[in-house]
Amino acid sequence: MKEQYLSEDEYLSALKERSDLPAGFTAGSVELSFHPREIDTPEPTKMRLSAILAEEPTTLFAGTHTQSLFPGAPVKVTRRRLAGKNLRGVLINNRIANVCVESGERDAQLLLDSFAELTGGSGDELIPASTGVIGWRLPVDEMKTALPGLKASLSPDGLLDVARGIMTTDLFPKVRSAKAGDATIVGIAKGAGMIEPNMATLLVFIMTDAAVEKGELERIHRHAIDLSFNRISVDSDQSTSDMAIILSSGKKEVPDIQSFEEALLSVYQPLAEDVVRNGEGTGHVIQTVVSGAPETSVAVDVGKAIINSPLVKTAVFGNDPNVGRIIMAAGDYLGTNKLQVDPNGVRISIGGHPVFEKGSFLLDPEKEKLMFEHMKRAELNYEKCSYPAHQNRVVIELDLGAGSKTAAVLGSDLSYGYVRENADYRT
Amino acid sequence: MKEQYLSEDEYLSALKERSDLPAGFTAGSVELSFHPREIDTPEPTKMRLSAILAEEPTTLFAGTHTQSLFPGAPVKVTRRRLAGKNLRGVLINNRIANVCVESGERDAQLLLDSFAELTGGSGDELIPASTGVIGWRLPVDEMKTALPGLKASLSPDGLLDVARGIMTTDLFPKVRSAKAGDATIVGIAKGAGMIEPNMATLLVFIMTDAAVEKGELERIHRHAIDLSFNRISVDSDQSTSDMAIILSSGKKEVPDIQSFEEALLSVYQPLAEDVVRNGEGTGHVIQTVVSGAPETSVAVDVGKAIINSPLVKTAVFGNDPNVGRIIMAAGDYLGTNKLQVDPNGVRISIGGHPVFEKGSFLLDPEKEKLMFEHMKRAELNYEKCSYPAHQNRVVIELDLGAGSKTAAVLGSDLSYGYVRENADYRT
Repeated sequence: MKEQYLSEDEYLSALKERSDLPAGFTAGSVELSFHPREIDTPEPTKMRLSAILAEEPTTLFAGTHTQSLFPGAPVKVTRRRLAGKNLRGVLINNRIANVCVESGERDAQLLLDSFAELTGGSGDELIPASTGVIGWRLPVDEMKTALPGLKASLSPDGLLDVARGIMTTDLFPKVRSAKAGDATIVGIAKGAGMIEPNMATLLVFIMTDAAVEKGELERIHRHAIDLSFNRISVDSDQSTSDMAIILSSGKKEVPDIQSFEEALLSVYQPLAEDVVRNGEGTGHVIQTVVSGAPETSVAVDVGKAIINSPLVKTAVFGNDPNVGRIIMAAGDYLGTNKLQVDPNGVRISIGGHPVFEKGSFLLDPEKEKLMFEHMKRAELNYEKCSYPAHQNRVVIELDLGAGSKTAAVLGSDLSYGYVRENADYRT
Repeated sequence: MKEQYLSEDEYLSALKERSDLPAGFTAGSVELSFHPREIDTPEPTKMRLSAILAEEPTTLFAGTHTQSLFPGAPVKVTRRRLAGKNLRGVLINNRIANVCVESGERDAQLLLDSFAELTGGSGDELIPASTGVIGWRLPVDEMKTALPGLKASLSPDGLLDVARGIMTTDLFPKVRSAKAGDATIVGIAKGAGMIEPNMATLLVFIMTDAAVEKGELERIHRHAIDLSFNRISVDSDQSTSDMAIILSSGKKEVPDIQSFEEALLSVYQPLAEDVVRNGEGTGHVIQTVVSGAPETSVAVDVGKAIINSPLVKTAVFGNDPNVGRIIMAAGDYLGTNKLQVDPNGVRISIGGHPVFEKGSFLLDPEKEKLMFEHMKRAELNYEKCSYPAHQNRVVIELDLGAGSKTAAVLGSDLSYGYVRENADYRT
């Protein structure tokens, strides 16, 4: 198992290798400081302002965003942009989410217009994205002042800086890339959940140079999101600001659409897993694979019922292969939703070890020890090392014996770190 | 506010006052020890075996139980009992839940038959209830040996012993009572959630002498459960063993059915709140009151979305009046379920202080301080005192502005204690 563990140098050089932008894009990031008007503090607050820009406006883009009834101003503006014809890039800030602020949309538009004046084109071709405290107003003047510096920072090598610049309490930048023939796909993300008080935002930006027709791009993006970011759950909370945007410069041919689709998925899925794996609170990544389901949606929902159960999550944190709680969580979901599953046909294993069959437990001290070791190997300890030193997971498999559909979902455990991170009072 | 705080003596004497059984009932509890066959341990394990018996079999009873796809053996037997004609009482053990064990139903029946041989009547008139570890087999021989002692312990004063005897990691016994004219209603419960690893069971037993016709009793019981135990959530997990049973000896007339219904609710609701308030993990009880809803079920579901959000729960633990997270949790639920609610019509207050209106926050440092104090007053500290010294709650109110229905739900915060209690490995 030794070879699965990375040193920090190995991790950083892998990250750098993944961060090359596709043809036709530049990116950059700058820092600024400001005094929030909402709190009394002598110390200025820091913010990073970042941008990703295509050389020319493109008609090839797609996006998905939060379904929250209270979307942030950036999401409201982005909805209109996605209904438009051309896009050129995104302007992103951390620290303040620009949610539930009366002037939110005006502030966002003003900044986009100012940035477009400097970089060419129209503010209506730029998407705004913000992540941070809810209820605070953006420091528009200070941000405007920082825009020339942001423009100067733009370069084809700038994506890793942006991946760092959009972090809030994320522990490490998240970048994944793949090739489809000559075309490149690269994506960055910032984490959702177990993060700074007042905020739980997932931001995902994918850049490609693949010449894929817009309708296809929309379909493939949506499908890939369904199989990646819609199959993770950190704490079952959807934020006011979640969005995932793909932009293509269209400069490279792809061998065929299926290769592109596979390459895209090979960016989205590890990026989604990076989001789960990130964060002081995460002590283990849990993968639940539900098979034998009558419908894929049932497999997904049973898997999510398990990874969202606080009793399952705390057991995993304690390296406790607690079959009873898995039974409890799955039985609750299946029974409450009156699904046609025969309890005697359900089989469960942890780390490949069968633990439940025909309504009874299959446990012995030797097996408990092996499962404990499986969970121990998947432990993450971000107090010792602030990057993901391995990609191990705790694997829980359920065969419902009631169909042919399978789905895997990823979640995290529930640790002291999660409570600490989220219970600290903001001031 | 001083008068809301109880000393331990005051609490114990209030508890004793509430524990008088209605006419026609006895109750008792004994301890036994055994060596579980499932684990290697030199120390014997302790179990309490308890019973509540009516003097004569009664036709007046009703019950509800878990909807889990994997119900425990006691629930399966209880389902049959509730479909029968007569009931005489319940036999309850803690320590082992008798779930997912091949011989579970046979073991339960054997114990009921043995107890009926000693106390008269048939084992088929007794309900079995078990709470504790899932997957272990009941120590049938040791339990049988303890039955004569259990019979000898039965007395009209024995209910408080039973309330204690059914505890697992509950911190304090839960007993509530009320009168409807001459008739008495008394209920006991053991907690759900934040409890011993491998277990999350809610057991509720209500005894009354009210002469209420069976159909009426069933209807009123179900309605009262809906307004009490179905409106609490500790960790959103439904166990394999939950049940709530009411038995009446029918010995006393009630003034009218409405008085009885009100009295019953005044037992169920505080008993349900006791379950939430109990437990090392609970640092605050949270009440969410949702008004202006198009349907009662929407008010309940929005309230539960808020009290089940880990980000809201951890904020409350930290006495952080975090409006952003309430917005996030409510917005997630309302948006995802596409409910017809105008975001600009939603109003939110915490502890009576308005914090959100017309899409924006209403916050200032003075108000934050008052809300912090409201939350501080509702703090529970079971390391200092192992009984509920006050009945204060953190009150979150949402007016959806979209109808006339209102519902209140109760939940708990998410603390280090919850993680500690649930992450400890079982051995």
